[in-house]
Amino acid sequence: MSDNKYTIGVDYGTESGRAVLVDVSTGEEVATAVHPYGDSVIDEHLPGSDEPLPPDFALQNPQDYIAVLQETVPALLREGGVDPEDVIGIGTDFTACTMLPIDQAGTPLCAKPEWRHNPYAWVKIWKHHAAQPEANRLNQIARERGETWLPRYGGKISSEWLIPKIWETLNEAPQVYEAAHRYIEAADWIVLQLTGQEKRNSCTAGYKAIWNKREGYPDDDFFAALDPRLRHVVDDKLSRHIYPLGDRAGSLTPEMAELTGLKPGIAVPVGNVDAHVAVPASTVTEPGRLVAIMGTSTCIMVLGEEERTVEGMCGVVEDGIIPGLFGFEAGQSCVGDHFAWFVETCVPPAYHEQAHSRGLNVHQLLEEEAAQQEPGEHGLLALDWWNGNRSILVDVDLTGLLLGATLATGPEDIYRALIEATAYGARVIIEGFEKSGVAVNEIVACGGLPGRNKLLMQIYADVTGREIKVAGTAQSGAFGSAMFAAVAAGNEAGGYDTIFEAAQKMATLQDVVYRPIPAHEAVYDQLYAEYVKLHDHFGRGANDVMKRLKALKQQVLAES
Amino acid sequence: MSDNKYTIGVDYGTESGRAVLVDVSTGEEVATAVHPYGDSVIDEHLPGSDEPLPPDFALQNPQDYIAVLQETVPALLREGGVDPEDVIGIGTDFTACTMLPIDQAGTPLCAKPEWRHNPYAWVKIWKHHAAQPEANRLNQIARERGETWLPRYGGKISSEWLIPKIWETLNEAPQVYEAAHRYIEAADWIVLQLTGQEKRNSCTAGYKAIWNKREGYPDDDFFAALDPRLRHVVDDKLSRHIYPLGDRAGSLTPEMAELTGLKPGIAVPVGNVDAHVAVPASTVTEPGRLVAIMGTSTCIMVLGEEERTVEGMCGVVEDGIIPGLFGFEAGQSCVGDHFAWFVETCVPPAYHEQAHSRGLNVHQLLEEEAAQQEPGEHGLLALDWWNGNRSILVDVDLTGLLLGATLATGPEDIYRALIEATAYGARVIIEGFEKSGVAVNEIVACGGLPGRNKLLMQIYADVTGREIKVAGTAQSGAFGSAMFAAVAAGNEAGGYDTIFEAAQKMATLQDVVYRPIPAHEAVYDQLYAEYVKLHDHFGRGANDVMKRLKALKQQVLAES
Repeated sequence: MSDNKYTIGVDYGTESGRAVLVDVSTGEEVATAVHPYGDSVIDEHLPGSDEPLPPDFALQNPQDYIAVLQETVPALLREGGVDPEDVIGIGTDFTACTMLPIDQAGTPLCAKPEWRHNPYAWVKIWKHHAAQPEANRLNQIARERGETWLPRYGGKISSEWLIPKIWETLNEAPQVYEAAHRYIEAADWIVLQLTGQEKRNSCTAGYKAIWNKREGYPDDDFFAALDPRLRHVVDDKLSRHIYPLGDRAGSLTPEMAELTGLKPGIAVPVGNVDAHVAVPASTVTEPGRLVAIMGTSTCIMVLGEEERTVEGMCGVVEDGIIPGLFGFEAGQSCVGDHFAWFVETCVPPAYHEQAHSRGLNVHQLLEEEAAQQEPGEHGLLALDWWNGNRSILVDVDLTGLLLGATLATGPEDIYRALIEATAYGARVIIEGFEKSGVAVNEIVACGGLPGRNKLLMQIYADVTGREIKVAGTAQSGAFGSAMFAAVAAGNEAGGYDTIFEAAQKMATLQDVVYRPIPAHEAVYDQLYAEYVKLHDHFGRGANDVMKRLKALKQQVLAES
Repeated sequence: MSDNKYTIGVDYGTESGRAVLVDVSTGEEVATAVHPYGDSVIDEHLPGSDEPLPPDFALQNPQDYIAVLQETVPALLREGGVDPEDVIGIGTDFTACTMLPIDQAGTPLCAKPEWRHNPYAWVKIWKHHAAQPEANRLNQIARERGETWLPRYGGKISSEWLIPKIWETLNEAPQVYEAAHRYIEAADWIVLQLTGQEKRNSCTAGYKAIWNKREGYPDDDFFAALDPRLRHVVDDKLSRHIYPLGDRAGSLTPEMAELTGLKPGIAVPVGNVDAHVAVPASTVTEPGRLVAIMGTSTCIMVLGEEERTVEGMCGVVEDGIIPGLFGFEAGQSCVGDHFAWFVETCVPPAYHEQAHSRGLNVHQLLEEEAAQQEPGEHGLLALDWWNGNRSILVDVDLTGLLLGATLATGPEDIYRALIEATAYGARVIIEGFEKSGVAVNEIVACGGLPGRNKLLMQIYADVTGREIKVAGTAQSGAFGSAMFAAVAAGNEAGGYDTIFEAAQKMATLQDVVYRPIPAHEAVYDQLYAEYVKLHDHFGRGANDVMKRLKALKQQVLAES
C-alpha cells in the first residue's frame, strides 16, 4: 500500500471495452488496456446461426462486457504495477441507448437457452436502427397530444432510444417482451453486475428514456396511446428509481473482486454514458465551452444555466452531465465511420501501395494529400448523412450525398469533402444552440479523431470560426469514468467529494490550439451556405428522394 | 488482283486511330489495326514543356494522325493478305469538333517552330472545354438577336464547337488567330493530307460550325456582334464551299500512297464524323431507329423526314448523316469515361485482387456483382454529369452527383448507379425527341461498350422501355468510313453508288436483342421520375450550386 490512490475507468464502446488506471491525485494515466468484444457488433446473423438478421439490426452479446472486466482490469494492475489495495473505485460508462431484456435475477434473456435464438432477446446497441417506424409513430402521437416533454428532445425522439426499441420488440416479438422481467440500459446492467445493485442512472434515463428530474416519465396515458399493452411499461419493465451521476451505486461484490483482482467493497458509481463522462474529462464543468467527442460518430455536449429548447437536439437533462447544470446533447451519427467507410470502400490500390511504402496508413496519406489543397479547390460538397442525421434533423432515413464530382476528382478530394461535410454538420448544430441562447464560445475536442487528424481539426476551426482545444486524455470515456469513481469513493477514501474538484485535479488540456484562419473562414462561409441549402432541401421535405429511395430499396429487398 | 474488292476505313478516336479493311461485297472485316497517338490527349502540358496548361484544355498533335496512316494501313494489308491493287478506296472519320489552325500550305501551326510553344496553335479536340465563356456569350447574343438557326441546335451552341473555340483563341492568343491562314476540322485536314484537296464536309460544317445547306453560315453581322474582329471569320478563316457526305473528295496522292502502301489515285471520300458514319454502319438509313454510339461518351443519332426543334439537341442537319434525310444528333458527354474514372479512382484493392485471381478485369467483376441486384436495391441515384451535360441541358459546368449512400454502400452499388444514371440521361434525350415528334421505336447500339457489358445493355432496355439491338461491327466508325469509301469509289470501280446500297450489302446486326423486362421497367419508371426531379433542380436553375462550386474552384486556383 502506497500513498497514491488509484481509480479504474472502463469505457464500453461500440467494438471494444477500454480501461484506464488513473492516479487520483495527479490524473496520470498509469496503464491502459483494451479488449475487443468477441462477437463485436452482430449485424448479419446471430452467433452460431446462418439466418440473416433483419435490416438495420445492430446487436451485442452481454457476455462480452463481462469479458472486458476479466481481461482488462488484471492487465491494468499488472502493467501499472499497482497494488489492488490502492485502487479505491471502479467506474463505467457505456454507449447509449444500448439496452437489453433481463430476467428477475438480472440475467440477459439472450443468455438463456430458450431465448438465445431470438434476435430480440439480445442487446440492441445504440446504432440499431430497426425501430424507426415506432419512433415515427411515437413522435406523431406525442405531437398530437402536445406532450410538453417533446421540445426537451428537440421535438423528436430518436429511433435509437429506449421506448422505440422496446416497442419494436413488442410489435415484432411480443413473446420476448412478455418474457422480459425488465428492460435495462447496459450502462446500468454492468453496474448491477459489479455491485448486485440495480441503481439506474439519471443520464441514460434523462437522455434516452424520456425521464425528467422534476416530472418523471411521460404518464401512462401517453404510453397507452402508443399501444394499450404499453400503458404500464414504466412500472412493469423499467423503474422509477433514478440516481444522480457521481452517486455511489454500491460496492464491488466478492465475485467481481475475484474476477478482476480488485478488492471487494471498493466504490462503484452509478452508470454513465461515454460521451457524458467525457465532458469533465475534457476539463469542462461550466457553460460556454462545447465538448465534441469525435470518434465513429460525434457527440456534442454543452452545459447551460437554464433549460432551453433547441431544434433537433438529442436532449436537455438537468444534472444529466454535471450536477446543478442543464446538459445539452446533440450528435452526428457518422464521422469517423464515414472516413473509415471511404478508405475501405473507395480508395484504389495505388494509394494503399503508396501509403504502405511510406509507412503511413491510408488515412494519413489522404490527409497529407488533402492538406495541400485550399478550401474550395476540389469543387465538391457532401451531405454527411451516410448513417442518417442525428442533429438537428433527427432522421435516420436520410442518406449521403456527394455533389460536384468530375473526371478529375481524386480520392483525396472526396476525403476532404467528407471531412468538411461533418464540419458543416457540426456548425449547423452549434448555430442551433446559439439561436436558442445556449452560448458556444470555444470547442474542446476529445475522442479518437482529434489526435489522429490535424487537418480535420483545422477544418473544424475554419468552418466553425471557433478555437478548438484538445483534451489531455486520449480516452476521455474511461478517464471520465475513473474521475466519477474517485467521486463515488469520496474524499475520505482518497478521492473527491465533487466532480468539479475531480475535474480540477485530474483533467487536462493539450498544448495545441487550432485557430480559425480568416481566409479559410471566408471561403467556408460560402460553402456552408451551399451546405445549408442542400441540407434544407433534402432534409426538410422539399425533395424526400432519400426516403423514397430507401423505401423502394426495402420494398425490393422484401419482394426478392 | 482478285475478284474481291476492298476498302479501308480509318476512325480517328480520342486516344488512338483504328483502321479496318473490309470486303466490299460481303462486309467482312478482313483485318483491323490500331495505333495509339504518341502524345495521346494533351491536357497537362505541351510535349517537352513543364508549363501547366490552363484548366479544361484538351489538345492533340496532328502528326499523330499521320502516324496512324503510316502504321495501320500497311498492317492491314499484311494481316489481310490483300493486294493493294484490290483496295479501291480509303475513307476517314474523326472526333468533332476537333479543329486546328493551319498555314496556307495546310501545315498545322503547331508543327512550325515559331508556334509550337503556344497551346492555342495545337489541335483542340472535342473535349477541350475552355471556350465555355465564349459559348455563353455567343448563345446570349444569338438569343438577343433572335437568330433563326439557334433552335436547330437545341437553342444552344456548345463550347465544344468551332466558333467558340476559334473565338477563345482570338481572345486568349490573338497572335495565333492572326497567324492562322485558316481553321479546319481535323476531319477535313486529314482528307487534305490524303488528297491534296481541301473539301470541307457537310457533317462537321452542319453540326459544329453552324452551317446550313439552304442558308449557309450565320451572316457577318452576327459574327461582328460577337466581336468586330470576327466579322469576316467565314471568308477569312473558313470556307463557304461545303461538300455532301459520300462525295469523292479526290484521289490518294503519290506521297500518301508511298506512306501507306496503297495505290495512288484510289477514291477518298470527304471527311466525316465517327458517330455519324456509325449510323449506316449499324444498318440504319431510315427514321425511327435510334443509333447510340457508346464509348467514352455516347452519341445519339436519329433520322427524320422533317426538320424539328428538339430541346438541347446537338443539332439537326439536312443530309448531315444520310442524304435526303434530316440527321438529329444528341449526346452524353460521360459514359464509358464515367465507369473508367470510377474503376481507376474508387475501387479498393480487394476488388482488384479478386478480379485478378479470377482472370477478370475490374469492370467485369463489378458487372457480375451488380448484375445480382434487383433495380432499386442499392438505394442510390446519380446524375451522370461527371463531364458536364451535353444533351439536353448543354452545360459543361454541371457536375456529378451521387445520392443515397450509406455505410453499407459498396463499389458494385455505385457502379450500377452510374450505369443507371447514364441510362436515365439517354431516356431524357429520347423523350425529348419524341416530345418534338421525332419517333424512336428501337435502339441500335454500337461502339465499344455494348459488346463488353451485357448488364449495361439490359439496364438501358429496362430504363428506356425499348428493344436494343447491337451493330454487327465492333468498330462502327472505321467500318462506316470503309462504307463511304466504297460509295466514293462508285459502282464501276467495284463499290456502290449510294450509302443505302452500301448499308444493305455491307452492314449487319448481331443476333442478340435486349428486351425490356416489365418488372424492371416499373421500378425504373419510379427512379427515372426521381432522376428527372434532380436533373431539373440542379440543371435548370433552381439551385446552381454546381456552377457556384466550379466558379469558386476556379477562383481559388487562380489566387493560389
